Amino acid sequence: MKTERTTIRRKAERARYDRQELYAILDEAIFCHVGVTIDGAPSVVPMLHARHGNVLYLHGSPANRTLRHLAAGEEACISATLLDGLVVTRAAFHLSANFRSAVIYGTARAVDDQAEKRVAMSAVVDAVVPGATADIRPPSARELRVTAILAVPLEEASVKVRSGGVAEDGPDLDLPNWAGVIPVRQAFGEPEPAADLRAGIRAPDYIRGYRRPVLPENDAAS
Amino acid sequence: MKTERTTIRRKAERARYDRQELYAILDEAIFCHVGVTIDGAPSVVPMLHARHGNVLYLHGSPANRTLRHLAAGEEACISATLLDGLVVTRAAFHLSANFRSAVIYGTARAVDDQAEKRVAMSAVVDAVVPGATADIRPPSARELRVTAILAVPLEEASVKVRSGGVAEDGPDLDLPNWAGVIPVRQAFGEPEPAADLRAGIRAPDYIRGYRRPVLPENDAAS
Repeated sequence: MKTERTTIRRKAERARYDRQELYAILDEAIFCHVGVTIDGAPSVVPMLHARHGNVLYLHGSPANRTLRHLAAGEEACISATLLDGLVVTRAAFHLSANFRSAVIYGTARAVDDQAEKRVAMSAVVDAVVPGATADIRPPSARELRVTAILAVPLEEASVKVRSGGVAEDGPDLDLPNWAGVIPVRQAFGEPEPAADLRAGIRAPDYIRGYRRPVLPENDAAS
Repeated sequence: MKTERTTIRRKAERARYDRQELYAILDEAIFCHVGVTIDGAPSVVPMLHARHGNVLYLHGSPANRTLRHLAAGEEACISATLLDGLVVTRAAFHLSANFRSAVIYGTARAVDDQAEKRVAMSAVVDAVVPGATADIRPPSARELRVTAILAVPLEEASVKVRSGGVAEDGPDLDLPNWAGVIPVRQAFGEPEPAADLRAGIRAPDYIRGYRRPVLPENDAAS
């Protein structure tokens, strides 16, 4: 069993490693939970996200309550979590889960520049459907106008990881019930073409073989 | 395509239906994201949860920062999200996801009563590993003492659901790229017994056939 919590920039020599771990969690997660204080009370909602370099882009309707408060300069806390396993123990007290969690703290910047908005939307496509940016129609000027985009710097973050197996000892080891780990992963089913898909269009490889994380350089090892 | 957002108790005639939908999301989700304001800034962390009747139980170490602030009466916002599909569109602007999301607002109550603490821990076992409560060793008095348990009433909540297919029209329908839905679900792998599991202990049916949601009355239909 291994539980680790690291804060980015806590130690210089660990910073690069931790940042790679932070990036890996954000890149594998399809969505995150965005927390912001609204009228003095916490609000937490799910949103698609896209990491681009050292920035996390969020997008949505300009009417979106969370985005409006972020654009107004409210502090954000953004959490992305990947569940890797259920740690089933002999004693209820030890019940646990294997997971990788990234928590980002910061203040977002409203993206108004058209060129950066295009980059952000392209990053969103690439984050949700890696490989699709070459095929999908990019947003028009009108569509960009009615899309709010926020950029959150990945400066202050913490990564927490629990991995490995059951950690029990003493008399509990003699209990007669099963203990171990049930692996958990996100699974992707057979793509279902749109009812109005034009005849003759076949799903490309990045759709038929959809998987996360995308590991272009380490495919053989996975 | 169907996007619905409902607020529990917004309309009397919808309340029962919405509550069942809220319960279904919380029961299928293995973990949630708990938001609380700490020193004026939002904090969002993942936690295992257990719904028991009209209450959501959270548990952890008494030193846990989030639980301490909840116990002190800080308002909470708890979000549980199930991702059901990626909606791949011809235009980036329409890219979307199918999901079911529950957001709960409220103030938690610290559970101090030993009997209720036992009920809550049993609910946690049942939520994470349905079927295991009969086998797993319940917490001792000492273990209960070092476990903080918070109860959040399910009184104020909102449920948001996006389901169905691609919603595009006009010239986009003539674009040559693929559109459709990639179904997403949580998958559970082959259970891995603990290295120190006593010889001869076989994984019970609820471990070997682990699935979510558990639908005892509708198994045939699923």
